[in-house]
Amino acid sequence: MAWLTAILTLIALLGMAPFADSAEVSAVTGECLDCHRTVTPGIVADWERSRHFRVSPAEAFKKDALQQRVSAKSVPADLAGVAVGCAECHTLNVDRHADRFEHNGYTIQVVVSPEDCATCHPTERLQFSKNIMSHAYGNLYKNPLFHNMADTINGVQVVSDSKIALQRPKPEDENDSCLSCHGTVVKVLKVEPRETSMGEMEFPALQAWPNQGVGRINPDGSGGACTACHTRHQFSIEMARKPETCSQCHKGPDVPAYQVYGVSKHGNVYHSAHKDWDFDAVPWKIGKDFSAPTCAACHISLTVDSDGEVVAERTHQMNDRLPWRIFGLIYAHPHPQSPDTTIIKNSDGLPMPTNWDGAVATSFLINAGEQDKRRVEMQKNCHLCHDSSWIKGHWDRFENTISSANAMTLASTRLMREAWKEGLAKGLNDKQSVFDEGVEKKWMSQWLFYGNSTRFASAMMGADYGAFADGRWNMALNVQELKDYLDLKRAVKKMPWKQGAEPRKGGK
Amino acid sequence: MAWLTAILTLIALLGMAPFADSAEVSAVTGECLDCHRTVTPGIVADWERSRHFRVSPAEAFKKDALQQRVSAKSVPADLAGVAVGCAECHTLNVDRHADRFEHNGYTIQVVVSPEDCATCHPTERLQFSKNIMSHAYGNLYKNPLFHNMADTINGVQVVSDSKIALQRPKPEDENDSCLSCHGTVVKVLKVEPRETSMGEMEFPALQAWPNQGVGRINPDGSGGACTACHTRHQFSIEMARKPETCSQCHKGPDVPAYQVYGVSKHGNVYHSAHKDWDFDAVPWKIGKDFSAPTCAACHISLTVDSDGEVVAERTHQMNDRLPWRIFGLIYAHPHPQSPDTTIIKNSDGLPMPTNWDGAVATSFLINAGEQDKRRVEMQKNCHLCHDSSWIKGHWDRFENTISSANAMTLASTRLMREAWKEGLAKGLNDKQSVFDEGVEKKWMSQWLFYGNSTRFASAMMGADYGAFADGRWNMALNVQELKDYLDLKRAVKKMPWKQGAEPRKGGK
Amino acid sequence: MAWLTAILTLIALLGMAPFADSAEVSAVTGECLDCHRTVTPGIVADWERSRHFRVSPAEAFKKDALQQRVSAKSVPADLAGVAVGCAECHTLNVDRHADRFEHNGYTIQVVVSPEDCATCHPTERLQFSKNIMSHAYGNLYKNPLFHNMADTINGVQVVSDSKIALQRPKPEDENDSCLSCHGTVVKVLKVEPRETSMGEMEFPALQAWPNQGVGRINPDGSGGACTACHTRHQFSIEMARKPETCSQCHKGPDVPAYQVYGVSKHGNVYHSAHKDWDFDAVPWKIGKDFSAPTCAACHISLTVDSDGEVVAERTHQMNDRLPWRIFGLIYAHPHPQSPDTTIIKNSDGLPMPTNWDGAVATSFLINAGEQDKRRVEMQKNCHLCHDSSWIKGHWDRFENTISSANAMTLASTRLMREAWKEGLAKGLNDKQSVFDEGVEKKWMSQWLFYGNSTRFASAMMGADYGAFADGRWNMALNVQELKDYLDLKRAVKKMPWKQGAEPRKGGK
Repeated sequence: MAWLTAILTLIALLGMAPFADSAEVSAVTGECLDCHRTVTPGIVADWERSRHFRVSPAEAFKKDALQQRVSAKSVPADLAGVAVGCAECHTLNVDRHADRFEHNGYTIQVVVSPEDCATCHPTERLQFSKNIMSHAYGNLYKNPLFHNMADTINGVQVVSDSKIALQRPKPEDENDSCLSCHGTVVKVLKVEPRETSMGEMEFPALQAWPNQGVGRINPDGSGGACTACHTRHQFSIEMARKPETCSQCHKGPDVPAYQVYGVSKHGNVYHSAHKDWDFDAVPWKIGKDFSAPTCAACHISLTVDSDGEVVAERTHQMNDRLPWRIFGLIYAHPHPQSPDTTIIKNSDGLPMPTNWDGAVATSFLINAGEQDKRRVEMQKNCHLCHDSSWIKGHWDRFENTISSANAMTLASTRLMREAWKEGLAKGLNDKQSVFDEGVEKKWMSQWLFYGNSTRFASAMMGADYGAFADGRWNMALNVQELKDYLDLKRAVKKMPWKQGAEPRKGGK
Repeated sequence: MAWLTAILTLIALLGMAPFADSAEVSAVTGECLDCHRTVTPGIVADWERSRHFRVSPAEAFKKDALQQRVSAKSVPADLAGVAVGCAECHTLNVDRHADRFEHNGYTIQVVVSPEDCATCHPTERLQFSKNIMSHAYGNLYKNPLFHNMADTINGVQVVSDSKIALQRPKPEDENDSCLSCHGTVVKVLKVEPRETSMGEMEFPALQAWPNQGVGRINPDGSGGACTACHTRHQFSIEMARKPETCSQCHKGPDVPAYQVYGVSKHGNVYHSAHKDWDFDAVPWKIGKDFSAPTCAACHISLTVDSDGEVVAERTHQMNDRLPWRIFGLIYAHPHPQSPDTTIIKNSDGLPMPTNWDGAVATSFLINAGEQDKRRVEMQKNCHLCHDSSWIKGHWDRFENTISSANAMTLASTRLMREAWKEGLAKGLNDKQSVFDEGVEKKWMSQWLFYGNSTRFASAMMGADYGAFADGRWNMALNVQELKDYLDLKRAVKKMPWKQGAEPRKGGK
Repeated sequence: MAWLTAILTLIALLGMAPFADSAEVSAVTGECLDCHRTVTPGIVADWERSRHFRVSPAEAFKKDALQQRVSAKSVPADLAGVAVGCAECHTLNVDRHADRFEHNGYTIQVVVSPEDCATCHPTERLQFSKNIMSHAYGNLYKNPLFHNMADTINGVQVVSDSKIALQRPKPEDENDSCLSCHGTVVKVLKVEPRETSMGEMEFPALQAWPNQGVGRINPDGSGGACTACHTRHQFSIEMARKPETCSQCHKGPDVPAYQVYGVSKHGNVYHSAHKDWDFDAVPWKIGKDFSAPTCAACHISLTVDSDGEVVAERTHQMNDRLPWRIFGLIYAHPHPQSPDTTIIKNSDGLPMPTNWDGAVATSFLINAGEQDKRRVEMQKNCHLCHDSSWIKGHWDRFENTISSANAMTLASTRLMREAWKEGLAKGLNDKQSVFDEGVEKKWMSQWLFYGNSTRFASAMMGADYGAFADGRWNMALNVQELKDYLDLKRAVKKMPWKQGAEPRKGGK
């Protein structure tokens, strides 16, 4: 008996709870499960470990305010008392969903969108719509400059006679590359019959599917994908709070946040100690539930101090504690006011938040007052462990590094502008792409990789990413190599026979 | 009492079982342990945590078919009833083993080979012999083209008077580099006396030892090393199923599988949730034992659905679910028919599965029908969580990326062939290596690193490795830099004084 | 009852012990806690999980010799009987501390230094003072050659008219880059009032703070930071023994130890199995507490065999088991005799342990006898699992790789010296930096990254870091690219119009 108890306790605590109580499962969801338990057992098992399985909305509403994981005040009566199961989500707003189809007597939508999740989580959906990430598709592909940048990366280059012709990328290549994170445009192509283990059935064929990109355009017209972080079908807050989840889109040289975090003191503590943390607690209490911040602790989660007092409110906007935007563009700059960055025009008339020399497009970006506010907001979590001298020292250093990395980008941009001017590369004045030549990509590396990395390393004290691992070393070397290459081009350009004449033989 | 029970339960479940029951230990193994428990306590402790310690072959045979971890129907009588201990493996086939030696009254073999493991695991050994990995030594070093490639990497370059001379690599350098994963040729050099804590004893001195490379050539003439994945002396299926084990040889830029997996949704789930999985269960049940695939789930393990029905059979061939070979060669292509790839000749007469332009050496590779069969086999595991629309969308995208990455490799190869033709580099027509010049290594980067990475990222949806982290960005830049370099070389080549004459002074 | 017991047992074992017994907390520390439990709850919670909270020095002294974690024989009477709390460390040696300040009736020091920790841990402090790491600040910044190297990395480059001017780096940039790991010089700038949640108070404003670099210069004049590895405020031996902690400074391309470890067999075992290890046990018993070495097991920890016999003594010198210094300098070489490497002069009169051609500055480095002794010391841990044939094979291969990587560095250095001689780059003879040009940084990559990586990979059998991941491939390519670049420069240099004349038009 004691033995059985111990095992049950263990199993429950270890999270593989096979007998966990569920909320009542609706009749329709029960029908789904009748087949899908066999047809797609993996996702059913995932769901059975989820809070959606265990707690009905009605039960969720009973929690104390700080413990609430739902932000709606009420939900439709048929949803309130039952587990949030297959039918509850996949038949929710079928009229809005172009991806709806008839399936065993029910109308089903394939893709569950943020608008659907908003039934129970409207505050999160609203915040997320203000999150620049939810506009990741348009901000890249509806900005002609950046769309062109993507094309120079994703298009196939065809070589003949020592010349390179760049083809337009296929949609499949775009979806597999940039849009994997930025989000694809999911559309219904047609309805088609398919052979299944239950006989032939009809299903919609979706374009640009599968995709869980954070700025996905859904068949109901909404933007974003909650499942980018709240992975189906456990939708686990534990997973969303673990930095590995963020690493899906924030690990590469363009956004090395996860890498930098790993070598920061915070990341060291996480990797060494997180086995003992409670990643499921809401609110999230410093010291008790976790002892060093993960990405979520600083950017998203509702955190409380030892007295249970709120330190930081939950947000899904994510940049509302960020004074600076430190990656993805030529220079670091104050965050844009609108999550839709396609509206930005700098004083050169280009859709970018800074000029070539780094001057900011002030009217589209947050002002110093708003930056101060966000800095204070971010620092609230710092104060849980650090005194104000520590925090000020850290931020002063970080903001100096933003400025130094911008200065190193300016050095490379000046070299590049000379190259365009001297005709060593073709730029906007030649009505050409500024991203499609080798030397231009070398210039891009300065800000897209090395400047970013240096700033991330400073933000999180992830030492070597600011020194040798795509950091200051690389910024220094890249400027010098850029100049060396341009000097070689200059010398070669002076060779008279380049203008069509044959070189003379034998030095005579 | 209850307290004690709880602790014991815990300890047992947590895997550090200090009192676990063992099978009967044979008298000879007992003698080994008498000394080795003190002399090499680490490996004895490992073994005491292994299944080999707990379950005799006779007990293993009693399991239900799906739970069997042995594939033999019987074993020699003296092995059947006892734990699989020191003596059982290290005295097993001494007559076949050149590495045998006399040791305290017994004849011992140092290296336990796949042929030895086949005593209990013959099916796995047979499958593994069809695995291209078991031929990793010969496929690299018995292919003259690839052997030369390895030499240009491992040989020391000697500089004098601005000229580089490439020395032949020493065996120690080869063993420390390529052969670390591909496997060394382990031979007995001599028997030599050594001072030990038990007095002077004689031992064989082995060449190219230690090594656990997957294609190792053993002193009994067999090929391969089970211990590459089933690490001595726990031989743990848990470890073999964890992707960190695969990372030993599949993490670098030439095979970034582990890196890509980490940023895939499957990898996110693994890293966040695997603490709750059962990595020891045979068969491996989706949803119950694990909730996202590791490398093993897709490529090796016996998986079952929620009803216990077999989804994928266990295999140690590993490519029998793979239609495409996506790394290690110039172009991705259908898998070779034979695991011995040294027999391949393309239509140019070179020992490669494709021509310079990507055309495949059809008669040596699997045909479209076999590719279809393998694709279907692989997709069976996908169906445990995903519907056919998802799976088709994913595979269509992946196979498009294979084609795009091949096209980008073709671009670089065309530039390289122009370089060879114009004498800007020395190639096969000059009876020279195609791998030993800087510009040739730049060309190699296109397919050995960037094309690979792009394809792996697509195969596993590991976003940034297909975009900025050694992916499409790098393919695009590399082609452009290759052309830029060749254009500089062309310009310089036209300078008349390069042909021996002195440049004129002062521009006159 | 049984249920409760099971849970309590579990919680205790899982390490989140909420009811752990503490040593008596001193009255003064109690006063600190009265406020800081609310003001900085995170660090108070950390401390409450630490051994400093649970065990008073007096209790610690009662342990058996091998279980001792303190090395003092006694401590001042007022410290002996109480928990090692806020006041015990932060009011310890205020007279020596320039960072002292009055705080609610007490004199407090902000920074706890190794001299303070030495009250209970004098042996560790003494060992650490002999550790080259404790001199990391001076060894970099008081060596004029290396200081210059740092400046060429951290200084902002300003471009105008196609020329680059290197600015001197700001202190903030240095502190954010190299000194993040090497350690900053922490000084008191002034005392300043600050608004706090308790009203206005005065605090010292510290320069170059925060920093946990291993060679930090503290306000009491001492060098080093124990907290670099023993992270505040848990000071956990578990964390210090986990390789993630070392990764903070040993992961980048200049010191890829953590990366290499991860793909080694030892690292595979760690990543797969360490959840079952006891990282807190002192002494650390192979087989029982851990089954594969982490960084600490080989370099620092007190390890014992299955009989409890000491295998390796605890050390905080860390290089006393290392015959070779394999990173950070141009050639691998025997370790320096003194941890202060600024005293070294090679036969060219430069402050480096080798000449340009690799010849070692013998009189400053350990001799072959000392190397042998350290090799034997290191190999003692190897013997816990491996026989002498294995160990000898491994070490022979490693020492061959040291020599091969040195030879590949020599190749690049010869090219570089030719460049300096021919005026293709400016070097010491021109009274210029040898690190500030693009081509010089390319040369540096050979030894600072690729040679290092190749040697680390060999030392730990981390395959691909010795082959394709910053290893032999990169050494081979880098030498060739260096030569190709210099050849282009040579050709361009021969162009007569470079000396000021205009090129003639049209080839005539």
